[in-house]
Amino acid sequence: MKNTFGSSITVTLFGESHGPEIGAVLDGLPSGLPVNEAFIAEQLRLRRPAGRISTSRQEPDPFRIISGVFQGKTTGTPLTILIPNSDTRSRDYNFGPARPGHADYTAHIRYGGFEDYRGGGHFSGRITAPLVAAGAVLLSALRSRGIRIGTHLFRCAGIADDSFSATPAEELDLLNASEFAVLNPARGEQMRIAIAAAAENGDSVGGVLETLVLGMPAGVGEPWFDTVEGELAHALFSIPAVKGVEFGAGFALAEMRGSEANDPLEIREGHVVTATNCNGGINGGITNGMPLLFRCAVKPTPSIRKEQRTVNMLEMQEEKLVIAGRHEPAIVHRARVVVDCVTAIVLSDLMAQRGLLVFS
Amino acid sequence: MKNTFGSSITVTLFGESHGPEIGAVLDGLPSGLPVNEAFIAEQLRLRRPAGRISTSRQEPDPFRIISGVFQGKTTGTPLTILIPNSDTRSRDYNFGPARPGHADYTAHIRYGGFEDYRGGGHFSGRITAPLVAAGAVLLSALRSRGIRIGTHLFRCAGIADDSFSATPAEELDLLNASEFAVLNPARGEQMRIAIAAAAENGDSVGGVLETLVLGMPAGVGEPWFDTVEGELAHALFSIPAVKGVEFGAGFALAEMRGSEANDPLEIREGHVVTATNCNGGINGGITNGMPLLFRCAVKPTPSIRKEQRTVNMLEMQEEKLVIAGRHEPAIVHRARVVVDCVTAIVLSDLMAQRGLLVFS
Amino acid sequence: MKNTFGSSITVTLFGESHGPEIGAVLDGLPSGLPVNEAFIAEQLRLRRPAGRISTSRQEPDPFRIISGVFQGKTTGTPLTILIPNSDTRSRDYNFGPARPGHADYTAHIRYGGFEDYRGGGHFSGRITAPLVAAGAVLLSALRSRGIRIGTHLFRCAGIADDSFSATPAEELDLLNASEFAVLNPARGEQMRIAIAAAAENGDSVGGVLETLVLGMPAGVGEPWFDTVEGELAHALFSIPAVKGVEFGAGFALAEMRGSEANDPLEIREGHVVTATNCNGGINGGITNGMPLLFRCAVKPTPSIRKEQRTVNMLEMQEEKLVIAGRHEPAIVHRARVVVDCVTAIVLSDLMAQRGLLVFS
Amino acid sequence: MKNTFGSSITVTLFGESHGPEIGAVLDGLPSGLPVNEAFIAEQLRLRRPAGRISTSRQEPDPFRIISGVFQGKTTGTPLTILIPNSDTRSRDYNFGPARPGHADYTAHIRYGGFEDYRGGGHFSGRITAPLVAAGAVLLSALRSRGIRIGTHLFRCAGIADDSFSATPAEELDLLNASEFAVLNPARGEQMRIAIAAAAENGDSVGGVLETLVLGMPAGVGEPWFDTVEGELAHALFSIPAVKGVEFGAGFALAEMRGSEANDPLEIREGHVVTATNCNGGINGGITNGMPLLFRCAVKPTPSIRKEQRTVNMLEMQEEKLVIAGRHEPAIVHRARVVVDCVTAIVLSDLMAQRGLLVFS
Repeated sequence: MKNTFGSSITVTLFGESHGPEIGAVLDGLPSGLPVNEAFIAEQLRLRRPAGRISTSRQEPDPFRIISGVFQGKTTGTPLTILIPNSDTRSRDYNFGPARPGHADYTAHIRYGGFEDYRGGGHFSGRITAPLVAAGAVLLSALRSRGIRIGTHLFRCAGIADDSFSATPAEELDLLNASEFAVLNPARGEQMRIAIAAAAENGDSVGGVLETLVLGMPAGVGEPWFDTVEGELAHALFSIPAVKGVEFGAGFALAEMRGSEANDPLEIREGHVVTATNCNGGINGGITNGMPLLFRCAVKPTPSIRKEQRTVNMLEMQEEKLVIAGRHEPAIVHRARVVVDCVTAIVLSDLMAQRGLLVFS
Repeated sequence: MKNTFGSSITVTLFGESHGPEIGAVLDGLPSGLPVNEAFIAEQLRLRRPAGRISTSRQEPDPFRIISGVFQGKTTGTPLTILIPNSDTRSRDYNFGPARPGHADYTAHIRYGGFEDYRGGGHFSGRITAPLVAAGAVLLSALRSRGIRIGTHLFRCAGIADDSFSATPAEELDLLNASEFAVLNPARGEQMRIAIAAAAENGDSVGGVLETLVLGMPAGVGEPWFDTVEGELAHALFSIPAVKGVEFGAGFALAEMRGSEANDPLEIREGHVVTATNCNGGINGGITNGMPLLFRCAVKPTPSIRKEQRTVNMLEMQEEKLVIAGRHEPAIVHRARVVVDCVTAIVLSDLMAQRGLLVFS
Repeated sequence: MKNTFGSSITVTLFGESHGPEIGAVLDGLPSGLPVNEAFIAEQLRLRRPAGRISTSRQEPDPFRIISGVFQGKTTGTPLTILIPNSDTRSRDYNFGPARPGHADYTAHIRYGGFEDYRGGGHFSGRITAPLVAAGAVLLSALRSRGIRIGTHLFRCAGIADDSFSATPAEELDLLNASEFAVLNPARGEQMRIAIAAAAENGDSVGGVLETLVLGMPAGVGEPWFDTVEGELAHALFSIPAVKGVEFGAGFALAEMRGSEANDPLEIREGHVVTATNCNGGINGGITNGMPLLFRCAVKPTPSIRKEQRTVNMLEMQEEKLVIAGRHEPAIVHRARVVVDCVTAIVLSDLMAQRGLLVFS
Repeated sequence: MKNTFGSSITVTLFGESHGPEIGAVLDGLPSGLPVNEAFIAEQLRLRRPAGRISTSRQEPDPFRIISGVFQGKTTGTPLTILIPNSDTRSRDYNFGPARPGHADYTAHIRYGGFEDYRGGGHFSGRITAPLVAAGAVLLSALRSRGIRIGTHLFRCAGIADDSFSATPAEELDLLNASEFAVLNPARGEQMRIAIAAAAENGDSVGGVLETLVLGMPAGVGEPWFDTVEGELAHALFSIPAVKGVEFGAGFALAEMRGSEANDPLEIREGHVVTATNCNGGINGGITNGMPLLFRCAVKPTPSIRKEQRTVNMLEMQEEKLVIAGRHEPAIVHRARVVVDCVTAIVLSDLMAQRGLLVFS
């Protein structure tokens, strides 16, 4: 179904960048799940552009839950979240020239010229705000069941962060609270400098996000087709700018021998574990009880200050484009909040399909 | 829905490695689509293990279409394909020790111990045979509409193939007919030698597959969520051993600047095109009319001759495992046929959702 | 999917009787469909309780479309309609005693005691307001394609209306504009008197609605399972109080002989028609080009002024209940607007699945 | 999805009346459910035309389960049932004249002339055989959980059967084993005589089936939209010849007062029950723990020996049609087995969505 993701637990997104409100409907939730509005607000704050390396656009992102919650807990009927748009300067956006790297041209073809083109319309990164709000409901639900999700900037602007340690639980908590989520603060500072340098030059940078999930039980996943990898990738590729997803050792597996890649099974403290985790906690599309590990490639922000060549769709002729308004030289650090929330949605849905997500 | 992929056009897979028959139901097909049984047989032959670098197991893969085709054309009602299993030596498989890198352990947990464990059961690579047969129906349908799909071994066992040329249509035709699909035959020979060397050592290798699709119209894709990337990745990660998927420049985009990654738009011969194709023919999850380009990371075949450490699920104790029976030191060259067929299924479904797949 | 109906065109309902706003998301719409807000307002007005035979509760039903419409036409992205609740006197509703004939008890069991019980919560007839608003978008879309839908009170409080005439197009237009939709005004007056008499007595009445659809093309319907009858019935049974649905001659067919029921085919003015229409315009679950005809049984309004025996769920003991607040002695005349709008949703979805609903 | 019914548990039907095999895929089953092949065979036998009042066509209906069952129990992966066709005399069927009351004309329009028209093709009542086989798996699963389903000929050829008694459990067992399922054998004999009389005359009769379900827990149903009534009706209207469905008092509710229809709640032996059951065990689309009760109107068999007027689709001209071959003067007694099996599918799916169908 269009604009809806999930089987047992579903999220539906609606709204346009310059409409009055944007929002999401979360359905199929268990009844009795506590809804922590402060936690949702915090996730929205982390997604919000702010500070030196982000746009000056103010997005305070207040939100209202208008259905599905009663006396602080989910009823089990559709939970609807609305977020008003504000400070939308439509004059900054003109129909005609397609912004390269954006959906302007393709949405124009797809929707027969009837798309709301202002600010990217329904395909604006702005729509990730209700996605984050919806995901935050499930992120705290999973956390209360001992499932921790965290993401760091594995690489950004050519600079690599450290890897997760062998005891990553505390690291995840630090990442969750961080506006610029890195494991090595010094590397983070280098990344910020590199981003600023790109911004100076009217340009932008991308990066790679690495996500770790602790506490997932074994036996979750619905092959054929609704594998953990397939479901996560399906949802992650909806996050604007994500162009690659890999699990465990990912593309590096292609260079390994079977004897290196196979993750021998062991018994540790009465549980079946694997000695290594090249498969990222997933075998045959089903969780094996080890930490989930995956990475997303995020392309550089397409809106740059530099002049670009493009086509004016109104006049069907080539022209030069300088994008007016606000620019963000990097979105990868904000995208990590979206990745966490999308991951919570996907894993909650897969657990609910197995009857493993019950509150009450 | 479990074991079913697609929205308008759907494929459902059923069967176990050691059951009497395995098969697929293709539904939502347009009426009047010619069904070329010889073409289906050829795709099944290319998927079949054969020759020096494959297992000696004989899988002749005869198939029967038992519904949905009348007088050589699709009726529009469910098309069911059955493929009998033969030469299934159950004695080679014992319940108890989980084969590392396979779904043995995770399926055991997921299905509560009721899984058909023989030869991987429902999660055997064998089930890709009906997937290929179903996809072949759509591969030839797309071909008749001017849409060509082809895949080569981008890398295998540490050796890189050439890239696609600027005029790749003929290259795709050659790849389609090839048992070991490379653009540079000399590199292909090196790959085969490297595979044989791994086999000598009782080990296996993986690789990266690169797929090109020519002729896709602009405006196909259903964001949010059912983006071209998301739908393709969802299906591709179902192919056993695929652990990474990237589009266009993929993970390399993370190192680029926006000014490099944005693919300037141009008008060429009256059509809007992009000067480069870093986005792999997809912007905002919708096709832009340029060639689709993506790569899949395929891990090494998990069944190896070398002794491995594992856990016996019956006795819940660690043990050493030597997998008896037949081995394949590489499956990546066979997986390329599966990738082509899966791609045909996904793109046909997305086109059908737009009303762009009509025959009659 | 829960709270969502449809395959190509979907409607999702959210909200509670006493929440701040209730609403609907319409997705999968064609791009470029004109949206007539005055027409939507008119349908909401007709659904609204008013006058002597309805409750005194004022429901002005203002609405806002917050997404999916740009410059007066659908964009093709999700169209979201919000309707604020007002005049919600929560003091009229207490948790504890289940109102007989309502969902109070069953929702309490289904949602584990976390349901918003005020005024029926998510299961209140109030939620038909956004359903009507969403359906009104499609009702006018179908009308612009020559497809007319109309419903009359076939029976109410024991009094029968006339049947449709042989040239019913104008009758449908009159019904559409009517607050108390009958073909024979004298019979309508008798019905109103009978309703008033039941109200005097603290009681309520039900009725049968008969719906006629003119202009449906032949060849619409998706058997097996998604037959025209099955899809319509599925949606119609969601309308609170509907307990029976029959097509064509319906239950009377059970008394006929095959030679009476079979509707002989004829050619009239170059078109294939049937001489009779016992099958209600549907054969084998697919439209045959004749008028669609079906009837819904609507039970009496469950909220009555009379004292009733029930169970207090809080104390788990039997008690007597007198429902305070406002009462409607009949809802069948308001339900007819809901039936029209639901019919428009179902038929639009089935047409869209066949590629027959395109605007632009 | 076309030809597929269900959300958590799904059934997909495939095959044509004159193809080599027809079948069904049951997916989403719990693991470890015992599969009783003798019980499936018995249900197929009861569906089979036989004896004086049925066709002489022999349909021995052997079947093969080719996937999803291992060591006598469901694995949880797709369960596929195949039934071979035999004794298919294609010479009895000619393309051209549409049989009145059948799907011949509508399928021809819907499938663009590519339909397999032989014997009704995919829309033949023959396809209810795999539907019965699939439903039988769930019928015995429900029975093992204390849920009994049974159907009788409420009316047939103008003759009424008795109603269910106050202690109907044994009655259901008798009905289940019966080829001509009536509560009052004398009335059954009268029905058979009336059917024979219609047959003498080259004609056919219909009837009404009444179904009772004992043991359903309260709290099952997924409103809005996936109500128990909506889901059952959706599936029941797929059974060829069903043209009406009503729950509880059904259309008679339209004549009642609220005070009669509301079913007062009581506590009996510690359980909440209703004093009457006008709502058929369902309030607000959710089961209330009382017996489910519903009726289906079945139209007379459309294939009759009498000459009929029709249109020849090949020549697009009116002609007289005499249907050669075998005829059944009634199918309503066979349809009752289909109703039981379809009911089992729907209720199992709704229970599985609530996590209430677990075996192991």
